[in-house]
Amino acid sequence: MGFSFDLIDTDETGTGRIGKLTLSRGEVLTPAFMPVGTRATVKTVSPEEVWDLGYRLILANAYHLYLRPGHDLVEKMGGLHRFMNWPGSLLTDSGGFQVFSLARLRSIAEEGVLFQSHIDGTQHMFTPELSMEVQESLGADIMMCLDDVKGYPASRTEARDALLRTTRWARRCKAAKKRVDPGLFGIVQGSMFSDMRRLSAEGLVSLELDGYAVGGLSVGEPRDVMLEMIEVTVPLLPPSAPRYVMGVGKPQDILDGVLRGVDLFDCVLPTRNARNGMLFTSRGSLNIRNARHRDDPGPVDPNCACPLCRSYSRAYLRHLFSEKEIFGLRLATIHNLHFYGELMDRIREAIKKKQLHRFVKAFVASMEELE
Amino acid sequence: MGFSFDLIDTDETGTGRIGKLTLSRGEVLTPAFMPVGTRATVKTVSPEEVWDLGYRLILANAYHLYLRPGHDLVEKMGGLHRFMNWPGSLLTDSGGFQVFSLARLRSIAEEGVLFQSHIDGTQHMFTPELSMEVQESLGADIMMCLDDVKGYPASRTEARDALLRTTRWARRCKAAKKRVDPGLFGIVQGSMFSDMRRLSAEGLVSLELDGYAVGGLSVGEPRDVMLEMIEVTVPLLPPSAPRYVMGVGKPQDILDGVLRGVDLFDCVLPTRNARNGMLFTSRGSLNIRNARHRDDPGPVDPNCACPLCRSYSRAYLRHLFSEKEIFGLRLATIHNLHFYGELMDRIREAIKKKQLHRFVKAFVASMEELE
Repeated sequence: MGFSFDLIDTDETGTGRIGKLTLSRGEVLTPAFMPVGTRATVKTVSPEEVWDLGYRLILANAYHLYLRPGHDLVEKMGGLHRFMNWPGSLLTDSGGFQVFSLARLRSIAEEGVLFQSHIDGTQHMFTPELSMEVQESLGADIMMCLDDVKGYPASRTEARDALLRTTRWARRCKAAKKRVDPGLFGIVQGSMFSDMRRLSAEGLVSLELDGYAVGGLSVGEPRDVMLEMIEVTVPLLPPSAPRYVMGVGKPQDILDGVLRGVDLFDCVLPTRNARNGMLFTSRGSLNIRNARHRDDPGPVDPNCACPLCRSYSRAYLRHLFSEKEIFGLRLATIHNLHFYGELMDRIREAIKKKQLHRFVKAFVASMEELE
Repeated sequence: MGFSFDLIDTDETGTGRIGKLTLSRGEVLTPAFMPVGTRATVKTVSPEEVWDLGYRLILANAYHLYLRPGHDLVEKMGGLHRFMNWPGSLLTDSGGFQVFSLARLRSIAEEGVLFQSHIDGTQHMFTPELSMEVQESLGADIMMCLDDVKGYPASRTEARDALLRTTRWARRCKAAKKRVDPGLFGIVQGSMFSDMRRLSAEGLVSLELDGYAVGGLSVGEPRDVMLEMIEVTVPLLPPSAPRYVMGVGKPQDILDGVLRGVDLFDCVLPTRNARNGMLFTSRGSLNIRNARHRDDPGPVDPNCACPLCRSYSRAYLRHLFSEKEIFGLRLATIHNLHFYGELMDRIREAIKKKQLHRFVKAFVASMEELE
C-alpha cells in the first residue's frame, strides 16, 4: 500500500484542517506531531511507550543513522522499523538540516554537500542520490528531499541560490527514488523573503511531490517572521498534499501553524525539555528541579492522565532528578509526549467542531507561565 | 498481617530449602533474589517492569534515603511504597554497611556511629533507635538491625568488639521497634573467624529475631573464605527463620548460598553490570560493547524470553550503548534481572524435584565464559 493523503475536514475558516495520511504501516490523522527518534530511539522511552501514548508516526535522522551505525547495517538488520522495534510509521529527514547545524567544514556544490562528521571528523559527501539511498535503506515511510539550508540572516542572493539548488536537488531525489511505497516530500526554502518562498514553492510544486515542508525555519529568526513565512508559503502549496513545518515547536507555535493550514510538526522540545526537568502542564510549564516541589505530594498536572501524573508525586519526580536517576527522565518524557499528543487530539476535535479559533484562544489563556 | 516464614520443602540433602515469606503486601517464595532500589528506584527500570519480571520483594537503602530526600519526607508522602509506586514488599537495610563503605570520618561508640555524609560532608549519628525510626518511617516490610561492619582483614579483637556491639545494638533495635507488622532481622558478624561467627549467631538467636543475615561478607575476602563463613554460620541459625546473605552476588555465589541453606540474597551486580553493558546469558556473560556484536541480528541470549531478547538484536543494543542512549541501559537491566529471576525460579524447581545438586552442576557447566 503506497502513500496517500486525504483531506477530511476543515475548521470554521477553511484553513485549519484534518487529514489522514495512509502509509504502508497504517493511518495517521493530522494535524500530527512527530516525536523525534534521532538515533533509532526516542530518547529515554521504549517504542511501546511511544505507541501507547497514541503516536503512530515518528521521525528519525538520516544524517545520524548514516554515520552510526550506518544505513547499510540498519538495512542488513531488516530496516529501521525492525531494528528499533517500532510498529508504527517513520519519516526520515534528508540530512540537510543536520549537515547545516552539526557538521563542520561544509562546502556546497551542485553535486552535493561535503561535510565532516561531527563525531570523528571523517569526510562525507551527501548528494540527493545518496540521501535517497540512505532513506530507502532505512525503510522510511516518508522521505525528505535533500535541501540546502541557509542560516539567519541570509542575503537575497544566498537565499535564491540555495532555494534553486534545493529545487534541482528535489528533481534528482525524485528521479533517484526506487521504492514505490514511501511518500517523498520537498522542502520549501527561501530564507525570510516572501518572493523567494514563492519561487521555491512553485518550483517544488511543479515536481508533483507527495507533500511539502516549510524548511529553513527555527534558525534564529524572530517568531513573527517565522509565522509570516508559514503564512506566505502554505497557500502556494496544493491543498491535496500534506504540509509539514520542520523542527517546530512550542505548543503555541503548533497552534499557530495549524491555524495557517499546517498538517505535520516535529520537534525535540518535549523530549529534550523533559530531560532538563521542564514539564508542560495545562497551566504552563514548570521545572521539577525547583525546591518548591520538594514535599509536594500532588501530581505534576492534576488535569493530566499520563502514567507520571497517575502514579507519582512531584516530590518523587524531583527526588529522581536531584539524584540523577534515569527513571525520572523517562517519566518526564512520557509526560511531555502525552501533553503534545493530547494537544493534537484536542486540536483535531476543535477543527471538527468548527471551534479552532476559540480553542486556541482558550488554550493560550490557560497557559500562564507557572515559573 | 504481620511477618511470618514457612518452610515448604528441602532439597535431596535437607539443606537447600524452599520457603514462603508472608509480609503485609503479599507472599514471597524463597530462595529469592532482591533487586536493589537504593534511592527509591531500581536504577533505569520502572516498578511495573520489576513487578512484571516476577519480583515481589526489593531492597532500599535506609542510609541513602535518610540523607536524601529524608525519611521524614518519604513518610509525609505516604511511605516508600507509595512514594516510588511499588506494589510489592520492601526490605530496608539498616545503613550500617553504607556508613562503613561510603561515609567518611566515622567514629563508632556504644551509642552509635558518627559519620559524615558522602554527599555534602554534613555530620550525622546513626543509633540503633534512629535506624529503626528511619526504617519504620520508610514503611519497610523487613527491617535490618544496625550492625557494626569491619573491613577485611580484621583482627580477632576488632571482630569480637564489633560483633558484641552488633548484638547489643540488635537488642536496642528490637526494643525500639514500634510497628508490629514488619519483620526484624539481625546481622551475624564476626569477620572471617568461625568462633566469632558462632558467638555472634548465638547472641542474636537468643534475641528471637524474625530472620538472620550473614553480614560482613563481600568486603574483600577470598571467595572460599566467604563460603566457609556462610557454611559455618547457617547451621547455627534456627531452621524456622529465613537466612539472608547480604550483598551476594554472582550466580555462582547464589547457587553456593542456596546449597548451604540460604533463603535471601541481594546484590547490585545484575543492575550495575547491565549499565556497563555486561549481560548474563545461559552460556556465560558477554559485553554488548564488543565490536563482534556490531552486525549480529540475533538476540543477546537465544534461550531467553525477556523483553530485550524477544524484540531486539545484539546489533541494536550495541548501537544504543555506543550512542550512550539511555534506553539501552533499561533493556540491559531488564535482561539481567530476568536472568536472575529465572535462576531463582529454576533453583526452587530443582529443590522441589530433589535435584538441586544436579541442577547446580549442570548450570555451572553451561556457564562457560563467553568473553
